[in-house]
Amino acid sequence: MTVAPKAVGMVADTATLAAELFADIAELTKDTQGVTRASYGEGESRALEHLIEVARKLNINVKTDDAANVTFQLGDDVGGRHILTGSHVDSVPQGGNYDGLAGVVAGIAVLADFSLNNISPPVPLKVIAFRGEESAWYGRTYVGSKSLFGLLKQEDLQATHRDTGKSLAVAMTSVGADVERIAGGNMLIEPDDIVAFVELHIEQGPVLIDRNWPVAIVTGIRGNTRHREIRCIGEAGHSGTVPRWLRQDSVFAAADLISRMEDHWTTILQHGGDLVLTSGIFHTNSDYHAMSRIPDELTFSFEARSQDQATLDALDGLLRSECKTIERDRRVKFEFDDPIHSAPAELDENIIEALLAAARAENLPDESIPSGAGHDASIFANGGVPTGMIFVRNQNGSHNPDEAMELDDFMAGVSVLKRFVLGYVV
Amino acid sequence: MTVAPKAVGMVADTATLAAELFADIAELTKDTQGVTRASYGEGESRALEHLIEVARKLNINVKTDDAANVTFQLGDDVGGRHILTGSHVDSVPQGGNYDGLAGVVAGIAVLADFSLNNISPPVPLKVIAFRGEESAWYGRTYVGSKSLFGLLKQEDLQATHRDTGKSLAVAMTSVGADVERIAGGNMLIEPDDIVAFVELHIEQGPVLIDRNWPVAIVTGIRGNTRHREIRCIGEAGHSGTVPRWLRQDSVFAAADLISRMEDHWTTILQHGGDLVLTSGIFHTNSDYHAMSRIPDELTFSFEARSQDQATLDALDGLLRSECKTIERDRRVKFEFDDPIHSAPAELDENIIEALLAAARAENLPDESIPSGAGHDASIFANGGVPTGMIFVRNQNGSHNPDEAMELDDFMAGVSVLKRFVLGYVV
Repeated sequence: MTVAPKAVGMVADTATLAAELFADIAELTKDTQGVTRASYGEGESRALEHLIEVARKLNINVKTDDAANVTFQLGDDVGGRHILTGSHVDSVPQGGNYDGLAGVVAGIAVLADFSLNNISPPVPLKVIAFRGEESAWYGRTYVGSKSLFGLLKQEDLQATHRDTGKSLAVAMTSVGADVERIAGGNMLIEPDDIVAFVELHIEQGPVLIDRNWPVAIVTGIRGNTRHREIRCIGEAGHSGTVPRWLRQDSVFAAADLISRMEDHWTTILQHGGDLVLTSGIFHTNSDYHAMSRIPDELTFSFEARSQDQATLDALDGLLRSECKTIERDRRVKFEFDDPIHSAPAELDENIIEALLAAARAENLPDESIPSGAGHDASIFANGGVPTGMIFVRNQNGSHNPDEAMELDDFMAGVSVLKRFVLGYVV
Repeated sequence: MTVAPKAVGMVADTATLAAELFADIAELTKDTQGVTRASYGEGESRALEHLIEVARKLNINVKTDDAANVTFQLGDDVGGRHILTGSHVDSVPQGGNYDGLAGVVAGIAVLADFSLNNISPPVPLKVIAFRGEESAWYGRTYVGSKSLFGLLKQEDLQATHRDTGKSLAVAMTSVGADVERIAGGNMLIEPDDIVAFVELHIEQGPVLIDRNWPVAIVTGIRGNTRHREIRCIGEAGHSGTVPRWLRQDSVFAAADLISRMEDHWTTILQHGGDLVLTSGIFHTNSDYHAMSRIPDELTFSFEARSQDQATLDALDGLLRSECKTIERDRRVKFEFDDPIHSAPAELDENIIEALLAAARAENLPDESIPSGAGHDASIFANGGVPTGMIFVRNQNGSHNPDEAMELDDFMAGVSVLKRFVLGYVV
């Protein structure tokens, strides 16, 4: 599919630039539904090529790093301390146009604004377009940003593409990444040079829509404890003939557990904690469940997410102790899997404050919310870089063709980013 | 499969007779696992033929009625008032040897005892062996007993066999039933002549085993309200990005419902009511449920069983009002099916008292429990015949090859039945 994008020259204003970039890249990467920009694949490369072409017309310099991420800046790269902003350009298959791309276009829009208006910020701004953030393609997240921090492992590089079976290493090499250097665990950047990393991203939840906030500042990125499969084992029996005191009913036991965990959730929220609980998979065994059979087996997933590691740890302890109580009361057994842990990422308090101040100065609500989804920003935060995030209002969630970000909201986010950069003094 | 049964002549005692009947019929109807006696089919007929052969050797007279059920009695049938006992001879596919057959063998054992000892009870005893009690074959229960009361409908007769697709009418005709007469809704018996119907049956639940009672007297047969499929509809969302106050989580909502209904269950039991609740099928939608997706759909069955129709009605009202409350609190929707209702069968208080007295006189515990499963006895009870039931202890439930009834327990039940018949004075 080759679509000639509209010619983009020097633009009168950054809003027009942003609108054209979004429209052109959507067109260049469109699929039967939404857009498809595979990690280290065709759509991702096409989006980057277009960004590079437009940037060059705007006198923005472009560099590609050893993980094939692309960096944009005004003037020559003389090294040294700088602010970094950006996000990723890949998408899930048949995804939306804004998840990731918004953060890259925002950075380029600020650079374009500085260029058009001859503005020199106190600390130089670089913009980065990451590759490979979405796990949909190789089952690996944040490949582009992890590579910068020497965090990509040999086994990650051997992960295979969901459809083609081709390895990530081959795909990365094909777009110019230095896989050998990455596999060696080398740092590809100097984190101490980055005084602040700020990622603008669409909100993937419904809070900003519901609250009527165009933007919000992110307080932290939730980590999680995920149980893929816990099994509650009871005993089968005829639904009519077994009295209550002889039942070992897995559905009533698991419902009791969910209700108890919900009570703990309430308590934690009432004490100002951050937590979401989800049991997305919850089922009796379809091989033999029946209306008149006391269910002897219920399998469920259980996921807790919080900005606070102590909350996650406490909650997993509560889960296990409630299961023990229920085992005693109801004579069932809970069989646990090994949970998967993902640590929360702490965002920098000074950056959060500065972003909130920038929002106030732009006459925007100075509101803050946690990020429930993970982001490249977490790699920087956990890599010791002071990090912040700006969320932009977005309808219909993300990872689907119906993502809907209004340009006005996006430009509100850009104005906060610009003001933050201009206000940043070392 | 043709197995020559052991020759059964006159036996020294009824326990030996019963043991031989159980063993021979198990052998005659054995399957790869357990026994198979299809309703109006081969195994059922083979069992009946063997019972008839043995009965004749014991000078017990045999008659076949227009529904192809078989009746046994001592002396000639001169009509008039009598006590009727019995149960069914069919089984589920690869079922157990005692579900049904025990009640027929018990009746024949009492007749044999009367014959051997020249006993004439105050009211004559007839024993009936029903066909077609199990719904496993044609999706219809109590075919043999319903036919007697003119309750079998034309559409029931057109029901087809689970494997062969042959109609019930054809199967019934092939064993000598007068399907035309049955289809006409004619009474095949005179209920007023039956002063008492007593069915001995293995307990299909675990209560007698747990309580260490060889037998128990049944207080009533539970009816039920069955919802095959209620759906709780919420809204999907990313498990990390949607805060609690914006969630419409079908799993938490349904767990809340189960916990609320369990509270009502407790209250009803505390007030002396009879109730069991079961949600045997309970599942998120496997087409798209996922660990990190707020579950937007949970489908479940919900069944209540009670001896008391008012309890069933009240409970269904509570179910609907709790769903309304949860809909309001959690912004989910519950979609209801049309429930299936089965009315409880009231057993006769005088017969229950007489059976309890007979148990006491036999130095057995005079304990009573409800029947959770349905029985031919319910057709008689609802047909205006004073009806009672005796349960015999049985391990491992029913409808499986592992049914395990001890002969001593069975003979305890037979002694209660015999004493009841002998003590019955019009």
